[in-house]
Amino acid sequence: MATSEAAVTRIMVAVNESTIRGYPHASISSRGAFEWTLQKIVRFNASGFKLLFLHVQVPDEDGFDDMDSVYASPEDFKNMKNRDRARGLHLLEFFVTRCHEIGVACESWIKKGDPKEVICHEVKRIQPDLLVLGSRGLGPFQRVFVGTVSEFCVKHAECPVVTIKRRSEETPQDPVDD
Amino acid sequence: MATSEAAVTRIMVAVNESTIRGYPHASISSRGAFEWTLQKIVRFNASGFKLLFLHVQVPDEDGFDDMDSVYASPEDFKNMKNRDRARGLHLLEFFVTRCHEIGVACESWIKKGDPKEVICHEVKRIQPDLLVLGSRGLGPFQRVFVGTVSEFCVKHAECPVVTIKRRSEETPQDPVDD
Repeated sequence: MATSEAAVTRIMVAVNESTIRGYPHASISSRGAFEWTLQKIVRFNASGFKLLFLHVQVPDEDGFDDMDSVYASPEDFKNMKNRDRARGLHLLEFFVTRCHEIGVACESWIKKGDPKEVICHEVKRIQPDLLVLGSRGLGPFQRVFVGTVSEFCVKHAECPVVTIKRRSEETPQDPVDD
Repeated sequence: MATSEAAVTRIMVAVNESTIRGYPHASISSRGAFEWTLQKIVRFNASGFKLLFLHVQVPDEDGFDDMDSVYASPEDFKNMKNRDRARGLHLLEFFVTRCHEIGVACESWIKKGDPKEVICHEVKRIQPDLLVLGSRGLGPFQRVFVGTVSEFCVKHAECPVVTIKRRSEETPQDPVDD
């Protein structure tokens, strides 16, 4: 094979926090996407792959709940920012630690914004060989109300995309939860 | 890893003939999907994967062009059927030969029908770990007229699906061709 083909396969995995358990817990579908990538693609060929974990934080409009917004000081804002950052890092730690254990190279980073837009933007910037997304596997009726990141990315991301649906036995009581 | 995880990863690749060159030539997008699978997923780990090539033949309504349909005998029908079969096998030969060269296990078979329906049906039957589809990467305007198999399968196939778009430098003069 040519040299360019021998370079590692770079797989971007977009991960988010659990809607039920919050930080530092990863969502069920993020973990599913990650485990699928390891078991079905990376397998025992750890040196052939590099995983790129992107966590997009949605700007937290409820952040002010934790403080008295009327008296919020610049220091309060800074603390809020630091707290968000720490939470995101704790989430990524789960994936990075697992990769280190297995010996798969990885990178991880946090961005803020609308997940679907940010993921597509980062794909354009990083140019991975494959983007892996977890999905709650909602039916068409539920999708109307929650909109799905994966559907958008399958259409708009400038690289091959694979969506890993959550297994039915892992679906929480409210399937919109994750 | 558990035993079930150590089993080979079974990747189904749906392949079709070139609209420009006809049998036994594979379409540009089929070849692209196949090469992507080898280079980015299988890599040097040939023993970890098994490729499953499905070729769906669309029942040929123009098949009678080759004979005088008014006088078509049962023998004529049989010949037509055998000819189709031979063509399909020649197409599959390309993929199977390449797999043998590299040492990747593979299987291949032919079905007749509407490709999108048959692919989803075969996914249900075979339960591969991943379905890889080539796509012409048509714009939304062109898609209205040709309909895309990949869009349908991404939505309906009961396994993870990845669509490999044809590279722009490989696009023929008429992008609907493949």
